Amino acid sequence: MDLWFTENHTENVKFSIRIKEQIYHDKSPFQDIDFFVSEEFGTFFTLDGLIMVTEKDEFIYHDMIVHVPMAVNPEIKNVLVIGGGDGGTVRELTRYKGIENIDMVEIDEKVVVACKKYLPQTASNLDDNRVSLYFEDGVAFIERKKNVYDLILIDSTDPIGPGEGLFTKTFYNNCYEALNEAGILINQHESPYYERDKKAMHRSHLRLKETFPISMVYQFHMPTYPSGHWLFGFASKKFHPLNDINEIEWLKNDLDTNYYNLDIHKGAFALPTYVKKALENE
Amino acid sequence: MDLWFTENHTENVKFSIRIKEQIYHDKSPFQDIDFFVSEEFGTFFTLDGLIMVTEKDEFIYHDMIVHVPMAVNPEIKNVLVIGGGDGGTVRELTRYKGIENIDMVEIDEKVVVACKKYLPQTASNLDDNRVSLYFEDGVAFIERKKNVYDLILIDSTDPIGPGEGLFTKTFYNNCYEALNEAGILINQHESPYYERDKKAMHRSHLRLKETFPISMVYQFHMPTYPSGHWLFGFASKKFHPLNDINEIEWLKNDLDTNYYNLDIHKGAFALPTYVKKALENE
Repeated sequence: MDLWFTENHTENVKFSIRIKEQIYHDKSPFQDIDFFVSEEFGTFFTLDGLIMVTEKDEFIYHDMIVHVPMAVNPEIKNVLVIGGGDGGTVRELTRYKGIENIDMVEIDEKVVVACKKYLPQTASNLDDNRVSLYFEDGVAFIERKKNVYDLILIDSTDPIGPGEGLFTKTFYNNCYEALNEAGILINQHESPYYERDKKAMHRSHLRLKETFPISMVYQFHMPTYPSGHWLFGFASKKFHPLNDINEIEWLKNDLDTNYYNLDIHKGAFALPTYVKKALENE
Repeated sequence: MDLWFTENHTENVKFSIRIKEQIYHDKSPFQDIDFFVSEEFGTFFTLDGLIMVTEKDEFIYHDMIVHVPMAVNPEIKNVLVIGGGDGGTVRELTRYKGIENIDMVEIDEKVVVACKKYLPQTASNLDDNRVSLYFEDGVAFIERKKNVYDLILIDSTDPIGPGEGLFTKTFYNNCYEALNEAGILINQHESPYYERDKKAMHRSHLRLKETFPISMVYQFHMPTYPSGHWLFGFASKKFHPLNDINEIEWLKNDLDTNYYNLDIHKGAFALPTYVKKALENE
């Protein structure tokens, strides 16, 4: 059998993975959910046909969304994750002994149930007793929270479909209100390379800049996302991601990380000129 | 018409580009040469079916191979380029007024002739009067040179086919001999992500480390190469790429660069942990 999964990175670019077997398909009220097993990337899943997580390289994304803010503020205790149904972000958070509470708000319970079954590599720590799962829209959830979180991680899909409300001005204002005075927000910030992703990147940056006094962007190499060049936004009321990095305290956590390290923390904020121009063009 | 070019990144991963038109095909004594026009990437060409240069993102590769060493030693005057038939590396070199001589040794004259015709974006400056073109094997050329170059740029294909001799111990020893005491060598250093590229990366690093007292690796985002995560090696008899960066002198060149800048120069040497481990595992 010659079975291939294909993702259209644009109308004119396709990325295809040889599949051993499709092991799950469902259509939730929000999206199509599909799980595959592949030789190259191990098990991976897609939402509405877009690759979310593969066993081979999910460590890159999850290292970079979690350890960057944790190395800036070692006092983080109360964390909100919006999205992140695969559990990889929570898994990295639970490695920090100092974290006391993690609220995870995922709109689609079916994603979590399927990941627990087919992708334990990421979903294994969702049962940690510090984690509370809420299956509802993050947009509504955040409205009820004021001045409570040290860290909000927006581990969302692209701004089409169920993720769209996570890219609005109102939503970011509500995030600002939900954070305490030391609060940091990290968001999935799209990519500078293909036109549609670049527009989403620009919009995301505009929202963060108009909401937070400190707002920066950092990059990482994510081979299974379109172009392999992906970004997170770092926004904060107080902490600068480079000037306030607390290397000594972070090293005390004694964490093995396969992508993140203190050098790459600093290097990741150095952006190519064309990316800086695209971010600033507003 | 629905025409697609496909490159196999591995046996199990394919990258495909919608083609408007194939504008050139030839088989030289060394390799298949094909030029295409695409909506997404403009004109691009392949050697033996592998993407070498696209109009959309060649600036990334050529910025990073040239400006990194030029910002470390502003006194570079005599340069050897091995490979680089598309002319993009020479184009960036000719922007430096201080460079007096550029020898370019490309084994395949047909590549240069075709790039001059179909890819003037990169080939335009091959006629600069400081440039001497030699259509011969770089492996043989370098044997005749002793203590003459300030900089050698190995702008090669992968270590299969005509590029294979550019990855041997003898070749790197000869490069060392061809450089003067301030000499810097940059080489195309493959990629850490897919297994075959990772092996080539490891081999390349081993060669540089056993030949040069200073040997480091830097990364960049190259979306049309497999995984989008690509590397160059920086080797030198004298200069450290970070400690010896000469920011003031580089800025005096007053060059507009679309990928390179002094921050990314420094950031690019910060490697992910898994890449560092793969490089050191020798």
